[in-house]
Amino acid sequence: MNRSYVHGYDPLESGRLEDQARTLEDLLHHDTRYPPASRVLEAGCGTGAQTAILARRSPGARITAVDIAADSLAAAKQRLVAMDGADVCFQQADCERLPFADHHFDHVFICFVLEHLAQPENVLRESKRVLKPGGSLTVIEGDHGSFYCYPQTRPARQVVRCLIDLQAACGGDALIGRRLYPLLRRARFDDVRVTPRVVYVDPSRPAWEEGFSRNTFIAMVSGVQKAAIDAGLIDPATWRQGIVDLEATIGQGTFHYSFFKAIARDPL
Amino acid sequence: MNRSYVHGYDPLESGRLEDQARTLEDLLHHDTRYPPASRVLEAGCGTGAQTAILARRSPGARITAVDIAADSLAAAKQRLVAMDGADVCFQQADCERLPFADHHFDHVFICFVLEHLAQPENVLRESKRVLKPGGSLTVIEGDHGSFYCYPQTRPARQVVRCLIDLQAACGGDALIGRRLYPLLRRARFDDVRVTPRVVYVDPSRPAWEEGFSRNTFIAMVSGVQKAAIDAGLIDPATWRQGIVDLEATIGQGTFHYSFFKAIARDPL
Repeated sequence: MNRSYVHGYDPLESGRLEDQARTLEDLLHHDTRYPPASRVLEAGCGTGAQTAILARRSPGARITAVDIAADSLAAAKQRLVAMDGADVCFQQADCERLPFADHHFDHVFICFVLEHLAQPENVLRESKRVLKPGGSLTVIEGDHGSFYCYPQTRPARQVVRCLIDLQAACGGDALIGRRLYPLLRRARFDDVRVTPRVVYVDPSRPAWEEGFSRNTFIAMVSGVQKAAIDAGLIDPATWRQGIVDLEATIGQGTFHYSFFKAIARDPL
Repeated sequence: MNRSYVHGYDPLESGRLEDQARTLEDLLHHDTRYPPASRVLEAGCGTGAQTAILARRSPGARITAVDIAADSLAAAKQRLVAMDGADVCFQQADCERLPFADHHFDHVFICFVLEHLAQPENVLRESKRVLKPGGSLTVIEGDHGSFYCYPQTRPARQVVRCLIDLQAACGGDALIGRRLYPLLRRARFDDVRVTPRVVYVDPSRPAWEEGFSRNTFIAMVSGVQKAAIDAGLIDPATWRQGIVDLEATIGQGTFHYSFFKAIARDPL
């Protein structure tokens, strides 16, 4: 899993994910809180950006965070060491073959993971196996096809399209947000409730212009410049123009993106 | 104004607008309430679908509703006659040349109107002229470019694109929702606050599947079938497939659309 992770593993990228988490924390996590002593699995913790939020918002919960990438896990451990009282156990594991007994966890949490997988059903099936009957599953994903802006130019659309196409070439699906409901239903979860978490940015929201439009979304698109040009998806001049056009929305236009949060229950 | 209104004026269309208003009322209007005795102008009332909501939600407000189309006004009057205690005065007028003195109104309300105009700035300028200093302007519009669905096929995208292109050919802008903020700022309104009003539909929300996906959005797209085929924008077989594909989301997939509500103030 994640062997061809589209965003790569470099420190700048890790910084981007941290920025993203800080800016979006309230939007995505305001309704995530696990009870003290409950057993929580975070499947695919990466460098721990979401793990830190989970630990802070659910004091006393017993969190197990797994990822397949040893380097990411090391970074996640380091991040969590700084947090007093966080009860997090890290373990290297493949989310498609979890090293836990059936019905071991009260809750499973998966954030920005399924979008990178060719078979997200496998992780959902494993999540279901390790969940206690009646336990909860939370999945948070974006949907790059939900992006639009004003002014919106053709090059701006093209650079975003490159990110979507590259993620598909890696076996992922950058448009997974819109299909969380059918995915979880087909995986036989009950009480599936999906809510869009909408980012709307205009010049009256300068913190979102910097924190989301520039430092999260445009930074994420910019991160695949070389891959997109090398793959022949776009020429360098159009790429540059697309990024310029995306940046031109800041201070005068609008920027739109939707995340999706699904909360469901393992049948009793 | 509205001389080439893309949706036409026939009774079925009027029924569609009524369905739309009922289904979306809470989402769009829960925060619209004008004080008793305040003077409210609805610019472009059409057949009164929004007027009825305004009157019901703002008892005692003195509402003036204008439209350029005599037939629509007659339908609006008939609709409001049935409402006890509604204080609404109807008047035939061009929203770009309002027959009211400067600073006559406390509030101006405009809903699903600017999208049809080649120069929405003209209506905003007139709204500003008839508003008292410190008065409020409310604008609600959709954005057809915000639509996406799952599964999303090429024909499904094409039929929606037809509606956008036809509205542009009529001099309108079906993507106006995303540019409300810059429009109102350039028209020199203050305290412009835009909020997206997001429709998310999946099979757990059957009332929205019927009320919005089928009877509002797909019905609206279906309404331009003849115009789209006659204009050579699409061939009949692709059209039929696009509608079938949109309908196939109901009961199994997801449907996404955003309206935008802007509330602003005329400077003191």
